[in-house]
Amino acid sequence: MARVNATPRRRGAARTDELLEVTLELAVEVGYAGLSIEAVARRAGVGKHTIYRRWPSKAALLLDALSRVWTADLNYRGTGDVRADLREQFLRSAPALATTPIGPVYRAVIAEAQSDEALRATLHEMFLANVEQSTLDRITRAQQAGELVPDVDLTFAAEVLCGALYYRGLLSTRPIDEAAVDSLLDMFMAAYGA
Amino acid sequence: MARVNATPRRRGAARTDELLEVTLELAVEVGYAGLSIEAVARRAGVGKHTIYRRWPSKAALLLDALSRVWTADLNYRGTGDVRADLREQFLRSAPALATTPIGPVYRAVIAEAQSDEALRATLHEMFLANVEQSTLDRITRAQQAGELVPDVDLTFAAEVLCGALYYRGLLSTRPIDEAAVDSLLDMFMAAYGA
Repeated sequence: MARVNATPRRRGAARTDELLEVTLELAVEVGYAGLSIEAVARRAGVGKHTIYRRWPSKAALLLDALSRVWTADLNYRGTGDVRADLREQFLRSAPALATTPIGPVYRAVIAEAQSDEALRATLHEMFLANVEQSTLDRITRAQQAGELVPDVDLTFAAEVLCGALYYRGLLSTRPIDEAAVDSLLDMFMAAYGA
Repeated sequence: MARVNATPRRRGAARTDELLEVTLELAVEVGYAGLSIEAVARRAGVGKHTIYRRWPSKAALLLDALSRVWTADLNYRGTGDVRADLREQFLRSAPALATTPIGPVYRAVIAEAQSDEALRATLHEMFLANVEQSTLDRITRAQQAGELVPDVDLTFAAEVLCGALYYRGLLSTRPIDEAAVDSLLDMFMAAYGA
């Protein structure tokens, strides 16, 4: 039974991958404003209800597509040295906003979210909450390992780490470079290093 | 001589105030995308060159208008208690992004800056750099007064403080409330408190 069921399930996953790939491809071509679920359906050769069944809006679809590309960025290394792992992670994910072709699409979603509160909620729920959570998981493990001070809630610290990088990426012309990441980690370790 | 010259200078300042007021009024009515220097000139009853002589672009004009409204937000109190002063300042300026009618206009500039690198530079230079600098000035005074650890460059810390608040204001649906500000200041004081 398991093998019989495995085939459609694999097909479903392949179909999802394909839809997300088409979404990103189209978003890069026409921009966020020009993207539509209808156009994705047309290019993928499926009915639009196939897409609506899985994703309630083009924002949700695109954010899922971005998450898929950036999954690696959510996986912190666990070398046992929290500062080194954060540093590696931040420098690796820093180009997300700056690098074409996906950076401009991601920026466009963020821009659109400034006048659309529901999209802002979707953006946070589907993407940024995961970024914050993966950071929180890594520093919580460091806390359990005795690298960071015990008995401190690190939830907001994880948000501050993400926030400092996004602020620089979105509102400054200075790059997220080694100096910036090192300064941020100096502050974090000064606050919470054991 | 001083009195003779004072009148035109006062008139110039009044004219500047009036132009910035008209700019904000119009921006609130038509949004950032609909705003133009021509429309500001028309409503203010001046030639558009009068405006272009002072401001190179509508973004520069609008950012100057926003700065004027928010000047109070850039003036930290100096009670001698740096944590209290930062707290008061952050909670006072928090509604900037959330409050109508100006919040949406400011968000629209930030949104537009996501696809316009020159505007991003102007936004940072004309507005955010001042926000960061006023924070840096306040914490540097605290450092000189012995409230914070000596011999640490606090430039990036000032950026992190601003960045954490902007991240929450722009990319999250959670409010910049007392709990958030207190958590941010816990982290800052844990890192740099003397």
